[in-house]
Amino acid sequence: MKAARFYDRGDIRIEDIPEPIVAAGTVGVQVAWCGICGTDLHEFMEGPIFIPPCGHPHPISGESAPITMGHEFSGVVYAVGEGVDDIEVGQHVVVEPYIVADDVPTGEGDNYHLSKNMNFIGLGGHGGGLSEKIAVKRRWVHPISDKIPLDQAALIEPLAVGHHAFVRSGAKAGDIALVGGAGPIGLLLSAILKAKGLTVIITELSAKRKEKAIESGVADYVLDPSQVDVHAEVMKITGDAGVDVAYECSSVNAVLDTLVAATKPTGVIVIVSIWSHPATVNVHSVVMKELDMRGTIAYCNDHQATIKLVEEGKIDLAPFITQRIKLDDLISQGFETLIHNNESAVKIIVNPNL
Amino acid sequence: MKAARFYDRGDIRIEDIPEPIVAAGTVGVQVAWCGICGTDLHEFMEGPIFIPPCGHPHPISGESAPITMGHEFSGVVYAVGEGVDDIEVGQHVVVEPYIVADDVPTGEGDNYHLSKNMNFIGLGGHGGGLSEKIAVKRRWVHPISDKIPLDQAALIEPLAVGHHAFVRSGAKAGDIALVGGAGPIGLLLSAILKAKGLTVIITELSAKRKEKAIESGVADYVLDPSQVDVHAEVMKITGDAGVDVAYECSSVNAVLDTLVAATKPTGVIVIVSIWSHPATVNVHSVVMKELDMRGTIAYCNDHQATIKLVEEGKIDLAPFITQRIKLDDLISQGFETLIHNNESAVKIIVNPNL
Repeated sequence: MKAARFYDRGDIRIEDIPEPIVAAGTVGVQVAWCGICGTDLHEFMEGPIFIPPCGHPHPISGESAPITMGHEFSGVVYAVGEGVDDIEVGQHVVVEPYIVADDVPTGEGDNYHLSKNMNFIGLGGHGGGLSEKIAVKRRWVHPISDKIPLDQAALIEPLAVGHHAFVRSGAKAGDIALVGGAGPIGLLLSAILKAKGLTVIITELSAKRKEKAIESGVADYVLDPSQVDVHAEVMKITGDAGVDVAYECSSVNAVLDTLVAATKPTGVIVIVSIWSHPATVNVHSVVMKELDMRGTIAYCNDHQATIKLVEEGKIDLAPFITQRIKLDDLISQGFETLIHNNESAVKIIVNPNL
Repeated sequence: MKAARFYDRGDIRIEDIPEPIVAAGTVGVQVAWCGICGTDLHEFMEGPIFIPPCGHPHPISGESAPITMGHEFSGVVYAVGEGVDDIEVGQHVVVEPYIVADDVPTGEGDNYHLSKNMNFIGLGGHGGGLSEKIAVKRRWVHPISDKIPLDQAALIEPLAVGHHAFVRSGAKAGDIALVGGAGPIGLLLSAILKAKGLTVIITELSAKRKEKAIESGVADYVLDPSQVDVHAEVMKITGDAGVDVAYECSSVNAVLDTLVAATKPTGVIVIVSIWSHPATVNVHSVVMKELDMRGTIAYCNDHQATIKLVEEGKIDLAPFITQRIKLDDLISQGFETLIHNNESAVKIIVNPNL
């Protein structure tokens, strides 16, 4: 079967590899669509980061480069391994792409996403969504209703990142949120916040991203820091109170500064983006306003609630799919678009079976 | 009566001023002992900061320099104003030294300490503990048992700062805490943590402060970053897990870095100290470990629980009183000691009636 395999920085190859074995306890999934994540782009441009380099096998998967990529995917069950009796061939599914040690508990309340040596399917081994088929442990396979189109279902993984950030924030219906940055995660998080009944203010510089934030309906206000004083505007919108909660989705220090300034006393700021450098933080404001600055990473028991929001029609993922490509065009039309025309692309999704 | 009044930076005068009027709703307190706070020292050296400068009256108190200083004090009720019928002459008391607007609710769950234009008695007006007498609104007067010596009672105010930091952290008995810095607040916070059943690790450079942390019994471990790798030692102590909670009490960036590194995934870091400059924060660790970094300032409905801990004998404040002086010696023996010999002084307390 065809698969996109990461060899090294700048070296991803579309190759023919053997089909996976659907072993006991696993589910065989024929991939429908797989999104390209910012993390995949970072691996391609600056990696290997999450991917275990050739000769350095990952402590849990035992694999190293070449590694099949892709962790944002939907598909259809084509086989079930021995002992799997609660899911059937033909079922539509998405995958929560975790690699965690066998002895890590993964129930409600278990922070398996923070467990030692945690990695992701499609980065740390165990196959990937950028291939025709994949065998996944039953635990990580989530059935979805046939009502969710499979192309949109590929976005449930990044949407779950937004859901987890929402859960981490402790925000509730009626709260006013400030989202810093309208990249894919900022937009999908905003979709969650709207679905949960919050008022959403997005701060974003890019014309194309501002446009997407408005046309997708996830923002009540879109503020451009090159055009307005975002802090002053937020104070007007909130009656001089400041926002209840803020989400940093840009890894830009000026954005973080604005969030700290515009959040009300006792408010919460969630850092959603991955920072490759330390941040400068106005801790004086953190102290004097008793702010709460929380990190969030990936998801943990968020998939079911996320899927439910989409099944109930509370979130429409269609506006966030900006391109559909086949696996052979992964580099030329996928990564190249993200490198050169990043602002207009939200989600490029790949069909490995075309 | 005698009072220490702040005129301007470097200019605090011991003067004779009229006795306060014990108006309706207030309590007349003859001051027993008043501690000198780091905040007082900052006003003297770098101020005015909290103190409204001459000609710029505070929006709530209406006062400006000269201002009577002192906000960490105990005393004995000598008169009660009209309408005050639940406290009697002779009662020993401490004061929660707030100045908040009249319309700010101050009940349980009200964050009056973060209300607009909040300031402190002894900094923003309303008299101060560095004078013979003071009239204080009933709301801010807390009766204490005669069993607590009045000199120790002067330390209840900074102890309440530690109590509030503990409450903000959500820590519980059995947790392991790392306290960054063994200045007065770091030590008093550690006393709270020990009383609450935590294991306390203090990181501190100063020989004299390390000694005080050990002899006062508030630390289970004292680690000196000039002698050991604090992060590595914490990992040994915690069985490679990291601490549950950390408290930054030094405003030193290297200490904050150590706290971020040594806190376990999902752990909480509380910023207790006042920073005059932004901090550099390893947000990557905050994200990847889902840390929670919380600011804390002063206290809010913490005095009763704090007083109870002292009354029950769970905290002995005696070891933290390092000097007793009279008001006339405030500058020569008080501030000068703190300026030139800060590390050996924990709390210098002043008796304005000597």
